[in-house]
Amino acid sequence: MLLFPILRFLALAATAAAELRVVPEPTTHTEGNTTLCLHSSFKIKIEGGRADDLSKAAIVVQNRLDSAPLYLSPTHGSEFTCGGQLRSLVLRFTGDAKPIATHAQERLEKRIENEAYTLSIPVDGAAVITAKTSIGLYRGLTTFENLLYSSLPGPRDGNKDHGHERHKNKRQVYAPFAPYEITDRPAFGWRAVLLDSSRHYLPLDVIRRQIDAMAAVKINVFHWHIVDSQSFPLKFSGELGALADNAAYTPAKIYTEDDVRGIVDYAGARGIDVVIEIDTPGHTAAVYHTWPELIAGFVRHPWSLWANEPPSGQLRFADPATIEFTRKMFKQTLGLLKSPYFGTGGDEINAVCVSNDTQTADIYAANGWRYNFSTKAESDATLSVALRPFTEKTHEVIREIGRTPVVWDEMAIEFESGIGNDTLIQAWRGPESTAGVIEKGFRVIMADYNYFYLDCGQGGWVNGNPEIAKTGNINSWCDPYKTWMKALSYDPYLNLTTDAQKDLVVGGQASLWAEQTDANNLEAQLWPRAAAFAEVFWSGGGEKGFPRDAITAVGRMHDVRYRLDARGIRAVPIQPEWCALRPGECLLE
Amino acid sequence: MLLFPILRFLALAATAAAELRVVPEPTTHTEGNTTLCLHSSFKIKIEGGRADDLSKAAIVVQNRLDSAPLYLSPTHGSEFTCGGQLRSLVLRFTGDAKPIATHAQERLEKRIENEAYTLSIPVDGAAVITAKTSIGLYRGLTTFENLLYSSLPGPRDGNKDHGHERHKNKRQVYAPFAPYEITDRPAFGWRAVLLDSSRHYLPLDVIRRQIDAMAAVKINVFHWHIVDSQSFPLKFSGELGALADNAAYTPAKIYTEDDVRGIVDYAGARGIDVVIEIDTPGHTAAVYHTWPELIAGFVRHPWSLWANEPPSGQLRFADPATIEFTRKMFKQTLGLLKSPYFGTGGDEINAVCVSNDTQTADIYAANGWRYNFSTKAESDATLSVALRPFTEKTHEVIREIGRTPVVWDEMAIEFESGIGNDTLIQAWRGPESTAGVIEKGFRVIMADYNYFYLDCGQGGWVNGNPEIAKTGNINSWCDPYKTWMKALSYDPYLNLTTDAQKDLVVGGQASLWAEQTDANNLEAQLWPRAAAFAEVFWSGGGEKGFPRDAITAVGRMHDVRYRLDARGIRAVPIQPEWCALRPGECLLE
Repeated sequence: MLLFPILRFLALAATAAAELRVVPEPTTHTEGNTTLCLHSSFKIKIEGGRADDLSKAAIVVQNRLDSAPLYLSPTHGSEFTCGGQLRSLVLRFTGDAKPIATHAQERLEKRIENEAYTLSIPVDGAAVITAKTSIGLYRGLTTFENLLYSSLPGPRDGNKDHGHERHKNKRQVYAPFAPYEITDRPAFGWRAVLLDSSRHYLPLDVIRRQIDAMAAVKINVFHWHIVDSQSFPLKFSGELGALADNAAYTPAKIYTEDDVRGIVDYAGARGIDVVIEIDTPGHTAAVYHTWPELIAGFVRHPWSLWANEPPSGQLRFADPATIEFTRKMFKQTLGLLKSPYFGTGGDEINAVCVSNDTQTADIYAANGWRYNFSTKAESDATLSVALRPFTEKTHEVIREIGRTPVVWDEMAIEFESGIGNDTLIQAWRGPESTAGVIEKGFRVIMADYNYFYLDCGQGGWVNGNPEIAKTGNINSWCDPYKTWMKALSYDPYLNLTTDAQKDLVVGGQASLWAEQTDANNLEAQLWPRAAAFAEVFWSGGGEKGFPRDAITAVGRMHDVRYRLDARGIRAVPIQPEWCALRPGECLLE
Repeated sequence: MLLFPILRFLALAATAAAELRVVPEPTTHTEGNTTLCLHSSFKIKIEGGRADDLSKAAIVVQNRLDSAPLYLSPTHGSEFTCGGQLRSLVLRFTGDAKPIATHAQERLEKRIENEAYTLSIPVDGAAVITAKTSIGLYRGLTTFENLLYSSLPGPRDGNKDHGHERHKNKRQVYAPFAPYEITDRPAFGWRAVLLDSSRHYLPLDVIRRQIDAMAAVKINVFHWHIVDSQSFPLKFSGELGALADNAAYTPAKIYTEDDVRGIVDYAGARGIDVVIEIDTPGHTAAVYHTWPELIAGFVRHPWSLWANEPPSGQLRFADPATIEFTRKMFKQTLGLLKSPYFGTGGDEINAVCVSNDTQTADIYAANGWRYNFSTKAESDATLSVALRPFTEKTHEVIREIGRTPVVWDEMAIEFESGIGNDTLIQAWRGPESTAGVIEKGFRVIMADYNYFYLDCGQGGWVNGNPEIAKTGNINSWCDPYKTWMKALSYDPYLNLTTDAQKDLVVGGQASLWAEQTDANNLEAQLWPRAAAFAEVFWSGGGEKGFPRDAITAVGRMHDVRYRLDARGIRAVPIQPEWCALRPGECLLE
């Protein structure tokens, strides 16, 4: 009498094909068909070394397994019995044990190897993760957690076909497709999410929540675009503190130096490097409120001549006083950070703020510099004359402490900007700009707005033309919305033919600019799309090459969205819940 | 020594032009230039009658004024002193006092007159709202609250140009542009927001929060699309309870009959009529799990032939058993409701579920009905033969208790569907369909997806074509995102020439379908765009006619978004906060 239902349940479970629903998909993996249950005494152990932040991460995972309300449907709602019991997970160092944060803050060249791990889960007994470093073990631990589900308690109580697993009379944490053998390493060393805290202030707890979510999908760089023309929330100690005093939105909407250090440490312990960007010489109008003499073109009209968005105003970069100010600001920011990298911006430099500024004209004249804006080429050359010393002298404070600048692609291809050959370039303006950066031999971070600008698709926000307003057709330069499928369809090697060119691609960046984003919609805009982005740059093209297959990714994408949701991240659904429970049923046929 | 700063502050305040930042904009209004402060003993009084829900609403407003963290910037960040003290607000009935809910649930014909009010706020003393009814007084009270701001406490502490008002050493609630004279009434009687709780379940507290937000912008109908093919969360008592038992996503994701009654009462007290839609005969696949014999074409492949989205399956409406079931389901739902209106759907009826169903074919043959699907016209005619008795008999249970059906436009223009002349038609498929409905002489609710489908613009979600997936260009039929400016640019009278035609337009509806929406992004998708929608149908075209001017609405739209935000509604920013503090500065010049 007892044997019959067990056989029946096993038979049901066996009908579900093994599928690894982990984002990013591990590089190589095999699965079986045994439902492996977490034993009530399940423990995570660390062997071969010790790192405090790894130990803490293990405790967090253990606690989450005890409580997280996960009830996804990898086996399409079958009832199940346990085919084996997992009693422990061993994290085993094969190299020296250092903190995760140390590795998160290492140079790019070391990251790929350091983040590699293997994960072996048998049908019974002990699972093992091996890695050379704590950050490798941490990545493996993240994968391990993402293999596990929890069932609803109790037998079906009349609810049919809901797609939620059930197991006897208790909640059971289980992995449906044991044994698992996973060997994994990132395809690229730079996998960044950019957040912008100037157009709208982002509370610290919101930033920390995003860091948790980034870690869950193995993103390893938080590019923090902390200040801009709209507000200056970075509250320096000392004299520079006036910048936030005068240009934070409110006295409460600031980040103190301790706040920044706190975020650096919080992220580091989760395998994430915090790269702060102090965008210069453009995107700096907020400085005007404290040092008006450093800013040209402040709040001029029509603003569309003087800036890409209001308010206009940029550092008078030809002026040695501006260089001195910028060096000081960079230096003080660098003192808060641990990353080998530092963002200095360089995007959207406005020529009118240079050509229509008498103080700048005087400086050019005094130096005997060309001052000709008759064509785009002349204008770029004119700007370059002053930009070069500005860049060289401000980047000097980065280099003299052994760190490396990160800039936007204009600095590599529009200007003779004075950047060094080692500078990392964020290519954001589409394939042509990317090709230009590669051609010049710079290392490049793929940040193409056509794929990875997650704020796009909400329509334009600057319209003031009454005739256009009447139609309501207020578009934006970066429409439409970038779907998760669009992100996943990205080929970082498109149009690159030689290995030397491909070697210049160090990774990618998904950017969430904040003109139309604040804490109210930040998570909905980021997740799960940033997870699709993360898969491109962690998982790579695999044997079949880029682009990755978005069709077979649907189940994974549902999974990651429900996991983020279960952790309190407001990730948006990619399909009706009916489809999440039956991913294959909702493909267009 | 004391006089000088006071004079200076007054001078600053006087430079800000009076601007009424209320959404929807009142029909007629005048403002002055006196900053009127709420006296510490400020009280709201009701005269000439009594209605419990109005009294409660007054207490809610009074409490919010005591605590809400509003610090918007109608006067661009000036410091101010109080030019007068407001000691009371009187709500004065000029007609019989009945509860707000009673009026919310009245017929359309009475709504416009009942919601009318006048609001007079002098520079000192007592403000007065007069209206015939409690719902008119409630609308006036809502306007009154939206005129008030609160300052940051304390003098400027070094923070310049932040655009936040300051007043001495305490938080001060104030109205910047007294005296105000407002005469207001809605242009249309039907101003609906549709929420869909089938593609994703919406928790009750989330629904209640949206009702609060709807009331804040004078929306007066909550169209609750409560069930659909994906899930059936409506948990009836008795035999029909099996529908939710078998097709709610989980046993917890249901609405009991008490839950529905609770929402009806909650909304009624806030001037909102709850119109539930039980969509038939399409959008009913969920019924299959309980009564498979009533459903044709359940989960057939390729689904795109059998339905507009998965899962396929629709009521076998030619079958008398189906009619009986539907009558019973309608009857039981109607018993929970107080609205004079009831939605029966009728959209996206699938012909293949009729033409490829042997049981249906047998019924047609037995009745000697035509069964010809050779052209679209033949197919529509064939469907109409069975649809007519289905509609007549199911609508009968609505009419026999004195209520009126509401259907989608297919029922008026694609089929001889059997609807009565009094039926309200939701025109959703663009200008042509709207014109068709008007031509047939039906009353119409403007629900054009090009303007008011707030879920659009997130890309397609049903793609399974590997070649398209490779490009990532997964579009949706209803792209792009509908901006608030798009909503505001709507002209309900476009292409209508005669008064008789215009009289058929009873209002509008903004719909948020939930394929890609759940509680995580619901509010960000709804707000503040639904407020722009509300303005079109409350404020009307004014003296200048439609479309309304989106340029001058920017300040109002910022205001409503910050007010919703202050109430905990996750409304999205429409521009950087810098612009919210200086709306005129961010128009494209």
